[in-house]
Amino acid sequence: MDKALTEKLIFYRRDFHKYPETAWTEFRTASLVAERLFRLGYTKLLLGRQIFYIPSIMGRPSKDIIDRHAKRALDQGGLREWINKMEGYPGVVAILETGRPGPVVALRFDMDAVDVSETTNSSHIPVQEGFASVNPGAMHACGHDGHTAMGLVLAEILKREESTLKGTIKLIFQPAEEGVRGAKAMADRGILDDCSYFIALHLGMSNPTGKLTAGTHGFLCTTKFDVNFIGKASHAGAAPQDGKNALLAACSAALNLHAIAPHSRGMTRINVGVLQAGEGRNVIPPKALMKVETRGETEEIAAYVYSRAKDIIEGAAIMYGTEKTLQETGSATTTQSDGEIVDIIVDAARSMGTFAEIERDAAPGGSDDATWMMKRVQERGGKATYIILGSTLKAGHHNECFDFDETVLPMGVDLLYTVLRTLSKKQ
Amino acid sequence: MDKALTEKLIFYRRDFHKYPETAWTEFRTASLVAERLFRLGYTKLLLGRQIFYIPSIMGRPSKDIIDRHAKRALDQGGLREWINKMEGYPGVVAILETGRPGPVVALRFDMDAVDVSETTNSSHIPVQEGFASVNPGAMHACGHDGHTAMGLVLAEILKREESTLKGTIKLIFQPAEEGVRGAKAMADRGILDDCSYFIALHLGMSNPTGKLTAGTHGFLCTTKFDVNFIGKASHAGAAPQDGKNALLAACSAALNLHAIAPHSRGMTRINVGVLQAGEGRNVIPPKALMKVETRGETEEIAAYVYSRAKDIIEGAAIMYGTEKTLQETGSATTTQSDGEIVDIIVDAARSMGTFAEIERDAAPGGSDDATWMMKRVQERGGKATYIILGSTLKAGHHNECFDFDETVLPMGVDLLYTVLRTLSKKQ
Amino acid sequence: MDKALTEKLIFYRRDFHKYPETAWTEFRTASLVAERLFRLGYTKLLLGRQIFYIPSIMGRPSKDIIDRHAKRALDQGGLREWINKMEGYPGVVAILETGRPGPVVALRFDMDAVDVSETTNSSHIPVQEGFASVNPGAMHACGHDGHTAMGLVLAEILKREESTLKGTIKLIFQPAEEGVRGAKAMADRGILDDCSYFIALHLGMSNPTGKLTAGTHGFLCTTKFDVNFIGKASHAGAAPQDGKNALLAACSAALNLHAIAPHSRGMTRINVGVLQAGEGRNVIPPKALMKVETRGETEEIAAYVYSRAKDIIEGAAIMYGTEKTLQETGSATTTQSDGEIVDIIVDAARSMGTFAEIERDAAPGGSDDATWMMKRVQERGGKATYIILGSTLKAGHHNECFDFDETVLPMGVDLLYTVLRTLSKKQ
Amino acid sequence: MDKALTEKLIFYRRDFHKYPETAWTEFRTASLVAERLFRLGYTKLLLGRQIFYIPSIMGRPSKDIIDRHAKRALDQGGLREWINKMEGYPGVVAILETGRPGPVVALRFDMDAVDVSETTNSSHIPVQEGFASVNPGAMHACGHDGHTAMGLVLAEILKREESTLKGTIKLIFQPAEEGVRGAKAMADRGILDDCSYFIALHLGMSNPTGKLTAGTHGFLCTTKFDVNFIGKASHAGAAPQDGKNALLAACSAALNLHAIAPHSRGMTRINVGVLQAGEGRNVIPPKALMKVETRGETEEIAAYVYSRAKDIIEGAAIMYGTEKTLQETGSATTTQSDGEIVDIIVDAARSMGTFAEIERDAAPGGSDDATWMMKRVQERGGKATYIILGSTLKAGHHNECFDFDETVLPMGVDLLYTVLRTLSKKQ
Repeated sequence: MDKALTEKLIFYRRDFHKYPETAWTEFRTASLVAERLFRLGYTKLLLGRQIFYIPSIMGRPSKDIIDRHAKRALDQGGLREWINKMEGYPGVVAILETGRPGPVVALRFDMDAVDVSETTNSSHIPVQEGFASVNPGAMHACGHDGHTAMGLVLAEILKREESTLKGTIKLIFQPAEEGVRGAKAMADRGILDDCSYFIALHLGMSNPTGKLTAGTHGFLCTTKFDVNFIGKASHAGAAPQDGKNALLAACSAALNLHAIAPHSRGMTRINVGVLQAGEGRNVIPPKALMKVETRGETEEIAAYVYSRAKDIIEGAAIMYGTEKTLQETGSATTTQSDGEIVDIIVDAARSMGTFAEIERDAAPGGSDDATWMMKRVQERGGKATYIILGSTLKAGHHNECFDFDETVLPMGVDLLYTVLRTLSKKQ
Repeated sequence: MDKALTEKLIFYRRDFHKYPETAWTEFRTASLVAERLFRLGYTKLLLGRQIFYIPSIMGRPSKDIIDRHAKRALDQGGLREWINKMEGYPGVVAILETGRPGPVVALRFDMDAVDVSETTNSSHIPVQEGFASVNPGAMHACGHDGHTAMGLVLAEILKREESTLKGTIKLIFQPAEEGVRGAKAMADRGILDDCSYFIALHLGMSNPTGKLTAGTHGFLCTTKFDVNFIGKASHAGAAPQDGKNALLAACSAALNLHAIAPHSRGMTRINVGVLQAGEGRNVIPPKALMKVETRGETEEIAAYVYSRAKDIIEGAAIMYGTEKTLQETGSATTTQSDGEIVDIIVDAARSMGTFAEIERDAAPGGSDDATWMMKRVQERGGKATYIILGSTLKAGHHNECFDFDETVLPMGVDLLYTVLRTLSKKQ
Repeated sequence: MDKALTEKLIFYRRDFHKYPETAWTEFRTASLVAERLFRLGYTKLLLGRQIFYIPSIMGRPSKDIIDRHAKRALDQGGLREWINKMEGYPGVVAILETGRPGPVVALRFDMDAVDVSETTNSSHIPVQEGFASVNPGAMHACGHDGHTAMGLVLAEILKREESTLKGTIKLIFQPAEEGVRGAKAMADRGILDDCSYFIALHLGMSNPTGKLTAGTHGFLCTTKFDVNFIGKASHAGAAPQDGKNALLAACSAALNLHAIAPHSRGMTRINVGVLQAGEGRNVIPPKALMKVETRGETEEIAAYVYSRAKDIIEGAAIMYGTEKTLQETGSATTTQSDGEIVDIIVDAARSMGTFAEIERDAAPGGSDDATWMMKRVQERGGKATYIILGSTLKAGHHNECFDFDETVLPMGVDLLYTVLRTLSKKQ
Repeated sequence: MDKALTEKLIFYRRDFHKYPETAWTEFRTASLVAERLFRLGYTKLLLGRQIFYIPSIMGRPSKDIIDRHAKRALDQGGLREWINKMEGYPGVVAILETGRPGPVVALRFDMDAVDVSETTNSSHIPVQEGFASVNPGAMHACGHDGHTAMGLVLAEILKREESTLKGTIKLIFQPAEEGVRGAKAMADRGILDDCSYFIALHLGMSNPTGKLTAGTHGFLCTTKFDVNFIGKASHAGAAPQDGKNALLAACSAALNLHAIAPHSRGMTRINVGVLQAGEGRNVIPPKALMKVETRGETEEIAAYVYSRAKDIIEGAAIMYGTEKTLQETGSATTTQSDGEIVDIIVDAARSMGTFAEIERDAAPGGSDDATWMMKRVQERGGKATYIILGSTLKAGHHNECFDFDETVLPMGVDLLYTVLRTLSKKQ
């Protein structure tokens, strides 16, 4: 990649890093993405309800928070025109139609930051170089700033080389990957239904700079959900019998949730990660909130855990005479990369000569909702993969000191472009 | 009381003590009671379904156990003819109709022993005198042997003095007071519905020999019940997901039952006294049994606790996908003795000169299902009381070393006879 | 009381109402109290460490919060000179030494507000009259504004009538009665050790205007405490075994705390009013906070509950390998008012003719840390009482619509002055 | 195998089947094994403390039960002389020393039955053929009757062919494999320390007749243990505060045990299979027993689960102020079969031509304490394997209808003999 593009890549990444936006509030990021794509000549830009199936949206914050962050986006350089077109749902899909026969190929780039306060330690490069987060409580601590930057620079190269390509390329800029909240609504909208090939990419993930993993399996199926127990307050000393104790309902649920039996056919996980209950020391607690996630190695196993969890929550509410609500806030499935596309990526990586280690397949063990997109494509006969682009990290994902090796960004763009050239010529 | 009667009283008591029969198996005891009453000239003896409302019977053992104990009764001197008439429900009501106008007065004597193995210590008088229990696991450790003996000797005096009495006297020999299982079925059968006066009596209960309590309040309302959780076994290592864990359902229920909030208007109690669950170390436990009791100072409070308990058990079953059954095995209510009858008892006791201390009223704090009989009489306009006949004890009620002071037996009989003489003449 | 004083009383009350300060932050209130007393001629004013035994202070907020509120106090009319003398511990003790022989009599006035946001409903008198709270989240919803105002006007009367009085009078303006946090440190400092008589007063408390209760018993002994479980975070999916789950430790503790067995000799209460645990949905929760209170009808029973609670918390920490801290944030004991002083109050109230109903004794059922002061005085041979000054309420104590009937304020001041005249002449 | 031997094999199997003896009570079985071996000419028979390291014995019943079963063994044809030599520890090790140089090879045959009552259904072959269990509650429902029979017939063949063999052969007849209680004491006694090769064999285990698995990995490490909580009884109504509730300690422990976090490096299991607590409905339960097992895929993981379990049990005891005991009643480790010996078995099986399917390796997923013997041999440089001899089952292991296909018995004996011939000639 030439120096100018590399500098642009770094500039974009650092700009996004400085203004991190968490799930469903990526208005500045998405509006700048749209503007830059538009200026590159991408005239077919889909936004808002064109790219989201609203009932499948999960874990979106309250209107109040959305509005506040949309306003902040404007204050930080976001563009009103694009934001308005998003109808409150940040995200961009750019379509490059070459006009020549060929397959439809889609790539996913996620844009959101995480709920972490970035370190102010002077040894942290974003601090040294002045691009640390200016948004308290939010940080690009997972590398999505790099993903989005790569997507933009790839778009520039594709536009430049458009005449040499065939078929159609879709660049999907997704919000809300954290908490696995955004991809399902995009997949369910059908934007991938004509795709023959789909690629998602993540940097880092325990792989050092120079290592490439061309395909994956073993992502965990997961459901994230919030549970509210709504009981009744009463004075704990003077009328304890009049209360309906939501705190005890939640405690009983939490213990029994963690006691869900394992499954002989594969791994399970459950976590009550947050419990907040009660109002005052001397009041029978009328409210409790639990943030829960269930996981399983297959959809069957994940469904078993989730079903057991719902029984337990139902039982706990009955025990204490409370109401309860259960709201899904995110989900991901599992998939396996397809050999055909993995082969192409391995060949592309080898041809580049810049990867010290190339691996066909790995089981990362976490969850990514790109799996919903992969599954959607695969169910319709397309091929999909999930690439891990190694990048030596300063600290683990989601850590306040997280920082990745920026030298992998141009490697990633080059790889994707090389792969797209090959795929573009497929039947 | 003359010496012959006193000796008979002691003889009866010791005979019953030697052959203790626990709740609903008092066939020997009841058949001997019937035979002795019959020989005294009591021709109106009611038995079986004449005195029990079958649907109100609680905590009756299995047919197998009933049959086995009925057979043992025969081996130990029980009388087949009377036992047959009992139709499997031991108990006797003797009616003395004087033929002269006057009120109907009823007295309750309970006959059952408790599930305790009597001490074999040589300092224990029943051991020294050779009348310790010969029935393993059963012992008259509450004094009902004395109650039944008093009832028989009182019957003899009443018969002897019949010509001086008026109205009708009913002597009720009740089974299954332990576990508060027998009285409700007798009350519900209506045998007390014509009574103007009702008296129940208990010896001991923390009062020493010479102290008399003429009335009571504050018996606790209680419900005793068994809960079964029926889940599904599976191999704990090879297929844990296939089980429905009744043990964990029971454990969760037990913890939350004990966490039922207290009540601001009076005392509550709950106890899971027994929990038995599981079949093998490596099997997900398919079955669990809990023996539970709830109590409250008033019927309202007791109902609150019982209702909460049912919710918790329901919730625990739902948590683990198990079936559940809840069977009531006993219950008692609370009542207050009536001043009119208390006055008569106090006067009678004073006139006797044998009581060192006479108390109008006390709150014993436990439960006795004679309260169902008292309540039935009171609801229909009659007067009722519960007398505590002090008797210095060797060890507390239900202890394996329990023994009472037999000298109180003739005092009790004399008191009841004196009271009956007065009541008999009431309008 | 003359009209001018009555107006001053109302003015003071409304001023305090408008600027409510919660426990340990009563800098504006206390500094104005000190200034007004000083201007009345009270030269012997004790402040800071003169009136608090620091190790006995409970539930004091962080230095940060104290500093912030002290600064706000200055902004709202608090007086720097007095605040400085308080050394961070708001509170005032004024001593009126008549110079004539006579007893030492002390009165307690509490000054703090509660953590409630005052209603903005236009039917609420403080809203109508413009003296509703201007401090968000804080409100005089318990009536301590009235108490403090009464103390100030009583001080004025006492000063005016000083020449007719004997002995010594101590006016104690206490912070942090809410949460029972402040009185013990004042009692332990010894400021009451020379007192022959002690009076605390509370308005409202279910008594209507015109009713006076001259003495109390049955305040509940209570301990308030915060428990922190400190575990270890780990990724709930990738390394669950590396975590130490503070949330589950807290849940297990909460359930078992509520299951503490009741006590046969009197009432017990326990409440886990607040539980906050965890950091993120997919993180094994490393931290949990519980706000707990235990109560008992006597010190023995309260000690039983508290001791059981400590065992359970210890056990829960061991179960999950977490550290734990337990910090007492408040406590109150129980006492009984003394007949001698109750008699004097009843006589005074009768002589005034303004009370429609005068009651010698009641059991309010809650807790007030004035009990520590009463107990301190009684242990040294003094007499103490706790008066309830009826006042018809618009809504219950601690409710956002709480408002009392101001007409009781002059009645209260008159009563206290009348009582003090009598006590002042005692030997 | 000739017909006479095959008939003997069936006869032995059915004889053992008819007189099943559960763990540590195999006196009849072991004495008949010893007698038959002795008659075959095995003069070197080790028994009692010669073959058991007593401190490593786990889960042995009480002396009372041992004595009762030893007596029953005599009644059912057991031989007093051999039983006496066993010193209460049934088991036999027969040593065949050829006198010619060669390796020491050991084989394990387990002899115990399980705690299951055999079906009386007429379709069950042991019922039809008259060899169903005559010992109530005990049944050879796992196939160890077949193992023991194979050991005896193999011994006969070996003795017959002794002159053609080299080295030393040890035939180990082990008690108490069920509950993984017996092997460790034999391994720890050192009886395998001179072995170059070790083979254990199990029939059935989901493999049909004709399938052979020559080696295994993935047996689960497990610890079986009993926990007793010893609290204090008190009357649940009259003095609940005086009790120490062992039932609630156990319930709290059970719930939290099942909530032990899984391990990212492999499978874990925990089961509280049995919980028995309490004495009477109205008594605070003073005692509770839990039967527990923990498992893990590796020793590290199993140690993690067991360590967590101990913390939880400790914490639960502290919560309720109870004493607690924890007694290990069984354990097994995990091992991997050695390729060298697996090769020999595969070759032998192929040469026989009677196995339709031959598999080198499988992960059975359960536990067998032969793993302790395998590990002991492997730690000293020897080679070991665990063979699964397919046998089509009528019902699963430990089911009351369990029955295997007897035609596999001669196949198993032939296989072992063929393998021994090869091993015998190894250096």
